[in-house]
Amino acid sequence: MRIAVTDGIDVNAKKHLEEFGHTVSEKHYSNEELIGGCISEYDIVVIRSATKLTADVIKANTAKDSKLSLIIRAGVGVDNIDLPSASENSVLVCNTPSASTNAVVELTIGHLISSCRNISKGDRKMRNGVWAKKGLRGSELRGKNLGLLGYGRIARGVADIARSIGMKIHAYDPYVKSDQNGCMFHDSVESLFSSCTHVSIHCFLSDETRHLVDYDMISLMPQKGEDGIQCGNHIVNCARGGIIDEEGIFRAISNGQLTTASLDVFEVEPALKSNLLQLDGFQATPHIGASTNEAQSRIGHEIVSIVQSHSKGETPDSCLNR
Amino acid sequence: MRIAVTDGIDVNAKKHLEEFGHTVSEKHYSNEELIGGCISEYDIVVIRSATKLTADVIKANTAKDSKLSLIIRAGVGVDNIDLPSASENSVLVCNTPSASTNAVVELTIGHLISSCRNISKGDRKMRNGVWAKKGLRGSELRGKNLGLLGYGRIARGVADIARSIGMKIHAYDPYVKSDQNGCMFHDSVESLFSSCTHVSIHCFLSDETRHLVDYDMISLMPQKGEDGIQCGNHIVNCARGGIIDEEGIFRAISNGQLTTASLDVFEVEPALKSNLLQLDGFQATPHIGASTNEAQSRIGHEIVSIVQSHSKGETPDSCLNR
Repeated sequence: MRIAVTDGIDVNAKKHLEEFGHTVSEKHYSNEELIGGCISEYDIVVIRSATKLTADVIKANTAKDSKLSLIIRAGVGVDNIDLPSASENSVLVCNTPSASTNAVVELTIGHLISSCRNISKGDRKMRNGVWAKKGLRGSELRGKNLGLLGYGRIARGVADIARSIGMKIHAYDPYVKSDQNGCMFHDSVESLFSSCTHVSIHCFLSDETRHLVDYDMISLMPQKGEDGIQCGNHIVNCARGGIIDEEGIFRAISNGQLTTASLDVFEVEPALKSNLLQLDGFQATPHIGASTNEAQSRIGHEIVSIVQSHSKGETPDSCLNR
Repeated sequence: MRIAVTDGIDVNAKKHLEEFGHTVSEKHYSNEELIGGCISEYDIVVIRSATKLTADVIKANTAKDSKLSLIIRAGVGVDNIDLPSASENSVLVCNTPSASTNAVVELTIGHLISSCRNISKGDRKMRNGVWAKKGLRGSELRGKNLGLLGYGRIARGVADIARSIGMKIHAYDPYVKSDQNGCMFHDSVESLFSSCTHVSIHCFLSDETRHLVDYDMISLMPQKGEDGIQCGNHIVNCARGGIIDEEGIFRAISNGQLTTASLDVFEVEPALKSNLLQLDGFQATPHIGASTNEAQSRIGHEIVSIVQSHSKGETPDSCLNR
């Protein structure tokens, strides 16, 4: 099959696909090129988050004589793909749902400790010639309440590690109401935020979750841990940009309602003009949740497996619109 | 009793000491002032790492008419106190051995993830206007071998969390040869380094450990995880400066033998002129291992308890030279 890869692919996965007799073309296309129908000659397109397959793009690439029959999202979130339009035009959409889970889990824990302990800030100050030891008093996670907004695969992985650190796990998820690990489930997002000095976001971006975490929500957070220690409030988002209202976060950090915010994802990316980048209590990474050798290798394996299923006429397991 | 506090103390601890009728004087002294005998009029001196109580200083402050009978190190390491000289001059030395354990444990895990996932680097690049997503591919900890050099209280805390992340724990400690948690013990430091892509240092500074981790030792590290992933080599030191040969680290990062090094402690502090600070694979914090609200509160509690024991004529539990 002819496969267009628009946002990169693991080198071993490309090799395996070619060994199976497929043709792999690696090239990133502009929106204009996509609208022009540049991927209609391929059977399969493999994208990450940088390629937006809107209804118009899908329509333009599924016109008469088009070969496109499968979109593979190398990663999890498919908010950059118009699913109804894909279904309408008989294009299957698959993602690689579990391949990047552990990468995001570890990054979330890293952001949580790094922000509460001023690791990036301390490093930055030292590189700027300042031994800021006295100004870098942080707080510990042990004994604190961690609120997980969304309780899917990644959140549960974060919960396991956070529990070993000694945090108490709280969660809100409209679809999950109990688990076997003593997680405390809340009936509302407000209740979750009112109970937790630390919150990590693990839900999808949708109309329900857009700007769900805003200034007012953050104002509910208690500042003080159950151990009586004034640890401040801390937010991490390694899920999807847009769930957090970034202006609200800016205001909350500026007036001390929020001590730190760590974002790997932003409403508009690349997010280089964000006023958050001026704040000491802010920590940012440029959407690298799945950027590990291990995750890319696992994603590569899954892509090969999806392509092989599809080329045999089977419906791949991770198909989202069969 | 009259108590001199030279490097700061938790505000609640000071309040409690005063409520017990003690006098607390907070002032940092230069080496010249210490040699001049400025603390001889106090019964107790409370120090952190910034005050060096050398043999000369102890001698000068324990001459005729001196009142000094107890040195309290708010923290763990007593390499800044000449213990033989204290004993010889009938001054007890106590530390607060467990109060900062968890703070250092969490910082170690934070440094480990943050360096392997380029958190500080990503934050720095973004603040410099660069969306370095593609250059920030990191590696995961799960499935990798973590070597612990020294297996005391802090190392065991690190092991517990690292195990929950999915790391395999290896250790070298001349005084510990087994545990209940499946840690693999090595007979030599060389064997430890040969087995582990990730090493964290948790030993004391002594003549045996000074520059123990040098370029040659790092060259033994395998670069590749047991999962076959080329994850590079990674070192963390939140224990004591001087155990690592910083020139060796610089060379190892420069030529790719070491992927990242994260140091909270340095041979000479403040370490603002280190050439390591020019390297992207380096991550630094300015000796903030015990700098949490929680640890300072626990240290404060322990200081009050030591002072109360001493003032009743008892020998405090954490006395190192009774």
